[in-house]
Amino acid sequence: MMTSEWLKVPSTPLNKQAALDAEARQMQLTKPPGALGKLENIAIRLASMQNTVNPCLDNIHINVFAADHGVATRGVSAFPQAVTVEMIRNFSRGGAAINVLARNLEATLNVINLGTASAPGPLDKVIDRHIAAGTADFSEQPAMSEEQFYDALNAGRQAAERAAVEKADLFIGGEMGIGNTTSASAIACVLLDKEARELTGPGTGLDDKGISRKAEIIATALKLHKLSADKPLDILRCLGGFEIVALTGAYLSCAHTGLPVLVDGFISSVAALAAVAISENSADWFIYSHASAEPGHAHIMSALNAQPLLDLGMRLGEGSGAAVAVPLLRVACDLHNNMATFAEAGVSEKTE
Amino acid sequence: MMTSEWLKVPSTPLNKQAALDAEARQMQLTKPPGALGKLENIAIRLASMQNTVNPCLDNIHINVFAADHGVATRGVSAFPQAVTVEMIRNFSRGGAAINVLARNLEATLNVINLGTASAPGPLDKVIDRHIAAGTADFSEQPAMSEEQFYDALNAGRQAAERAAVEKADLFIGGEMGIGNTTSASAIACVLLDKEARELTGPGTGLDDKGISRKAEIIATALKLHKLSADKPLDILRCLGGFEIVALTGAYLSCAHTGLPVLVDGFISSVAALAAVAISENSADWFIYSHASAEPGHAHIMSALNAQPLLDLGMRLGEGSGAAVAVPLLRVACDLHNNMATFAEAGVSEKTE
Repeated sequence: MMTSEWLKVPSTPLNKQAALDAEARQMQLTKPPGALGKLENIAIRLASMQNTVNPCLDNIHINVFAADHGVATRGVSAFPQAVTVEMIRNFSRGGAAINVLARNLEATLNVINLGTASAPGPLDKVIDRHIAAGTADFSEQPAMSEEQFYDALNAGRQAAERAAVEKADLFIGGEMGIGNTTSASAIACVLLDKEARELTGPGTGLDDKGISRKAEIIATALKLHKLSADKPLDILRCLGGFEIVALTGAYLSCAHTGLPVLVDGFISSVAALAAVAISENSADWFIYSHASAEPGHAHIMSALNAQPLLDLGMRLGEGSGAAVAVPLLRVACDLHNNMATFAEAGVSEKTE
Repeated sequence: MMTSEWLKVPSTPLNKQAALDAEARQMQLTKPPGALGKLENIAIRLASMQNTVNPCLDNIHINVFAADHGVATRGVSAFPQAVTVEMIRNFSRGGAAINVLARNLEATLNVINLGTASAPGPLDKVIDRHIAAGTADFSEQPAMSEEQFYDALNAGRQAAERAAVEKADLFIGGEMGIGNTTSASAIACVLLDKEARELTGPGTGLDDKGISRKAEIIATALKLHKLSADKPLDILRCLGGFEIVALTGAYLSCAHTGLPVLVDGFISSVAALAAVAISENSADWFIYSHASAEPGHAHIMSALNAQPLLDLGMRLGEGSGAAVAVPLLRVACDLHNNMATFAEAGVSEKTE
């Protein structure tokens, strides 16, 4: 059903009492107060999201959304468009980075194909959720129709709902789609009121000339569509990829149901930025995993007032940066739940 | 035996061919070249240390060295000196952060008591390697005698050799000792030719007044001992704690045997700085896990030309920051070893 009614559902509020209880527990653990740095904040935040003083991250759901982009035919990527389908096959066979990471984390991994230029045919472990054979070239026309747009949003929502039904403790979204840093950069330009050249980067590996060409194509699109920052649904529909729109839908649905989201890098953060533009309080549910090497990412983190946990110079997508950060979140919970308190251990407290 | 002969053993050279092979493999994995950022460098570096194109970190040895400091009676810490022994009991019972982390990583954890102000008596899972009831107050006299100094160095060396015999893939050193940021800051001042106030920080939680007092005590000690940066053994003996000297001994022994070291935060990094001052090539074997919240740490990282992996604002010691970084190193190896290549997956390579 093509509807936007569910977008108006408010986000689940965080449990403030659980946060206070978790904070009180952190102060009693056998360490100087604050000595575990951000790991303490993570445990407290997860406690407030999971309604418990003892947060846990056993059951992790990773959903990778894949789709092709009309704008890719403009030569905006260092890789040919065929790579989108080739990588979907790689996901199916278990050879991509996100497959290795999902196995490492014992996480559930779903790959959802929203529409590629050529159809790969039925693939093991890939959900075929075809919307169209990629988006239209957004430098010439809106990337998708209203119907396609809501279809993509709903595909994301369904993935989030599936994770909630299966009692996931954490939702990770990932993406694959040759050309999608072009789409994400264009969306961010409107939402942040920036020029194309400020937010355009190398993506999978363009040289300086390639980056200039990409920025020009984005600038052309921005002129054509005359979008404004207060209409995030229009921005996503005109400039989005199906996978970016699906991520936004998934993140909003997670915030509605109260499922913590660990956001990946540049493209995922743009989807989160759009989600926050649609529903401000959804931001409560988003944890930012890493600082992407894509130069525009820092602007997006700054706009979201977010301090990503890791800075490893990653720029792969697929949800890989988020997956890499999961062990830190797990360790934060483990320390929080299982360290002895001063009283239990008979250790003296601070003297001043 | 009180000897310094083993200090002159050169470090094992890294295997350059393994590094080249690992680098070539990274270029063939199904991702844009460089897209895994620092995780790629870690895998390549571990390959060159472990003489293999497929590095692995199954068997991890954590050794926490504990000792008391004469200078602690000067009020240089936010916690009373009794906490050193109390925390050793906490280690013994499994309640400290490093216990939780070691279990999480399925790592071997050894706690080695080198001498505390009051003896805790025999404790389960704690190696009693008594040198003295803490060091002497280094603001009045050398912290230790020649004999005590070599005893502490050897305690570290023995821990590293034990790890090597038990076929550890990675060595982590940790420390516990109320007053030991004072000792570490003093050592760093001489090695880096800095004033006390430049490298003195809050440690476990001093206020500004406490930090000033601590810096004055360090300045007094620096005047008293008249040490020079080219005599690292003297610096360690006059200003060290037993646990810091043991860490230096352990790191040097790891470099001799060719066992990769993951260095923890401020105090451990000062021990590594001293190791590099004693034997320059030992630096090849040290990976820096995290940027400590202790302000002097950045100076030490800069002097070592080191870029720590994590920056979580941690300042606990015990080897905890290094332990928190282990999953990143493991994930780096897992991705390196188990992702499909372009050829295996039939994925097109970069077009430019």
